[in-house]
Amino acid sequence: MKAKITITPKKAVVDPQGKTVQRALEQMGYQGIGAVHVGKYLEIELTGDRAAAGSQLNDACLKILSNPVIEDFHVEIVD
Amino acid sequence: MKAKITITPKKAVVDPQGKTVQRALEQMGYQGIGAVHVGKYLEIELTGDRAAAGSQLNDACLKILSNPVIEDFHVEIVD
Repeated sequence: MKAKITITPKKAVVDPQGKTVQRALEQMGYQGIGAVHVGKYLEIELTGDRAAAGSQLNDACLKILSNPVIEDFHVEIVD
Repeated sequence: MKAKITITPKKAVVDPQGKTVQRALEQMGYQGIGAVHVGKYLEIELTGDRAAAGSQLNDACLKILSNPVIEDFHVEIVD
């Protein structure tokens, strides 16, 4: 079992890293590029009960893995 | 249309950030935590043709968004 966690800046938060990537892609000649948001991605291998794993990872995201003031997170558990 | 790109260190590459997160989760008392891999996540808003967008983003990942020597990437295009 594995958890895939994505942590992204909230839409209302200024994302200079995303802006920089967007500008770089445009300057390299890529077409049709809109807003870019840069976040973190974590893959965590898990053992044990699926529901318990999901709830403890939600808790971990709120407490240490993300900054809930400026970031959103999404936890997905896959086999 | 939106692209979701995940960039992760290759399995054979030492991932000290992942190790640190793993140790932190264990020390905070979370159960059943295995290996942790920390990578990057990009969300890119796109306009234009879907197939063309996918192929140009693959190209961009190889050239500037990831380091293909030590990182794997995965591009997913969603509506």
